[in-house]
Amino acid sequence: MNTSLKQQLQHKIDTKTKPPGALGLLEEVALQVGLIQNTLTPHIINPYIVVFAADHGIAATGLVNPYPQQVTAQMVHNFVKGGAAINVFCRHQHIALVIVDAGVNTDFEEDIVITHAKINRATDNYLHGPAMSEASAMQAINKGKAIVNDIVNTGCNTIGFGEMGIGNTSAAALIMHQMLQLSVTACTGRGTGASDEQLNTKINTLETVSRFHHLGTKDMSAIELLSRVGGFEIAMMTGAYLEAARQKMVIVVDGFISTAALLLATKIEPSVIDCCIFAHSSNEYGHTKMLAHFKARPLLQLNMRLGEGTGAALAIPLIQSAVHFLNEMASFESAQVSEKIDI
Amino acid sequence: MNTSLKQQLQHKIDTKTKPPGALGLLEEVALQVGLIQNTLTPHIINPYIVVFAADHGIAATGLVNPYPQQVTAQMVHNFVKGGAAINVFCRHQHIALVIVDAGVNTDFEEDIVITHAKINRATDNYLHGPAMSEASAMQAINKGKAIVNDIVNTGCNTIGFGEMGIGNTSAAALIMHQMLQLSVTACTGRGTGASDEQLNTKINTLETVSRFHHLGTKDMSAIELLSRVGGFEIAMMTGAYLEAARQKMVIVVDGFISTAALLLATKIEPSVIDCCIFAHSSNEYGHTKMLAHFKARPLLQLNMRLGEGTGAALAIPLIQSAVHFLNEMASFESAQVSEKIDI
Repeated sequence: MNTSLKQQLQHKIDTKTKPPGALGLLEEVALQVGLIQNTLTPHIINPYIVVFAADHGIAATGLVNPYPQQVTAQMVHNFVKGGAAINVFCRHQHIALVIVDAGVNTDFEEDIVITHAKINRATDNYLHGPAMSEASAMQAINKGKAIVNDIVNTGCNTIGFGEMGIGNTSAAALIMHQMLQLSVTACTGRGTGASDEQLNTKINTLETVSRFHHLGTKDMSAIELLSRVGGFEIAMMTGAYLEAARQKMVIVVDGFISTAALLLATKIEPSVIDCCIFAHSSNEYGHTKMLAHFKARPLLQLNMRLGEGTGAALAIPLIQSAVHFLNEMASFESAQVSEKIDI
Repeated sequence: MNTSLKQQLQHKIDTKTKPPGALGLLEEVALQVGLIQNTLTPHIINPYIVVFAADHGIAATGLVNPYPQQVTAQMVHNFVKGGAAINVFCRHQHIALVIVDAGVNTDFEEDIVITHAKINRATDNYLHGPAMSEASAMQAINKGKAIVNDIVNTGCNTIGFGEMGIGNTSAAALIMHQMLQLSVTACTGRGTGASDEQLNTKINTLETVSRFHHLGTKDMSAIELLSRVGGFEIAMMTGAYLEAARQKMVIVVDGFISTAALLLATKIEPSVIDCCIFAHSSNEYGHTKMLAHFKARPLLQLNMRLGEGTGAALAIPLIQSAVHFLNEMASFESAQVSEKIDI
């Protein structure tokens, strides 16, 4: 922590023409972005959202997901055509959008405008064995790092990660269950919209998976955990967090699955958290507990639970507003405005 | 309420390529904007923030405000030079900004780029008599209507109201106290940042004002209440709400003072509320109680308490995002995405 810079940033924030603290969380964001970028005049440049898409072996069973597995591939086509929510939000906020095939269970045409980074066509079903080999987990992490590195080279300094993968709230719930040592029930939500009956089946299934993989009973490396119950999109996102933090990017953390990947990234490298701004509190059950673990104060509470990085995209204008006020607002002195009378 | 349109809008929202409800509050906003504009394809056109500035007789006593009264005029100059928070936010979100002198205690130069609508140089001190005559209250309301009408004629269909006025959290607290029949203590916060001692003095002072004007003990018209303890900016904003709703604009409600003015506007014309989207929950004590009165679910909770319409300005991109998803997202059918399996 650069104490002197922190004090200078706080002084700059406090002398703007507003009562001290009156811009609330935006003041904290301005401070944090200044510290990440090591400057009194930070900037948000060429923000990106990267959506990692992959399929999950468990999803083919229908035990954990109300939508069929092929929706993952269908949604990738929807992203490419610009019809998904994340397309709409990025388009209007001038956020670049990259779609990554991390492991979708289909063979996309070579010329489709996505980043081809398929580790495999879906993970294996973790009900009966590991979701992937540890080598595949490492491969996905390294690919995630490389993708972020390519984006940094375009001049981008702000990034958010989204995901698409039918069944991936189950993988995220299992990761949360192991990392935070909470019960499966405390970590499992309705995902895309499970009914009460579907939710019960999902919880029972994930409890079986937990016992099979000895979750909650022993310490496990991030790689081992990814190998046992992870997803390719979650592994790749883990690597993406690591590289983005190494490059001192402003990282905008989306919802339930993205925060689960952050649990893994911070287990590997705790300082990743310093670069993270939490976009929103998702409506997916369990997300608030992960946010509490990180002592996060997310910018938005819109009862959203869509994934795709949509929460991150909606929060980016607020982060930009924080940086803009820091750079552009007049000070009491420059504007010749009288200061507070302290009694 | 246009039931058929409401059903059609809900159907359009529900068939977008996302789990039903997954966009949370943005889905409610999309529905509301469609109903306000009476269309399945609403648009946010040329959004405006109008900041009403005025001074309060009570502020000259120093009993309720930690900043000196001249800050109101100084901040108007800051707005004109583009150095305040609201300038920064509007500039980057392409929101037009209009500053109105509703009753600032100074004589501005004729050529300064503000709307000259001064009712008087500050209200009278309501500790000893009415803040303004009922005729002045009516004049301010009518002026607020005329200002909004002029803005509508530029093609704008979305508007938020901000304010600047040292001492105006006191007027707003008194209005809330009378309208919601809550104690002065329950309605009075720290404003621009009163210390514990200043807050005690503020509460004691406002309790004296309440007794003097018989607040909390009898029904009172909006005009009488404005005349007794209002401010020119609050009265003008009340008229602005009335005209904006009459013109079926999307009205973005800012914080504590703006919501107090809405209490008055809805007392005069209850249907104003149908056009209102609540931007944020302010950190000013009492605001959450006003929001609860309106059963409001504000879009932002950023612990802000700056006024100027800053909360409204920050919420406008979210409202735009809601309208954009409604107009631009693909449907399950158009994108050939499989729908949920209901069991």
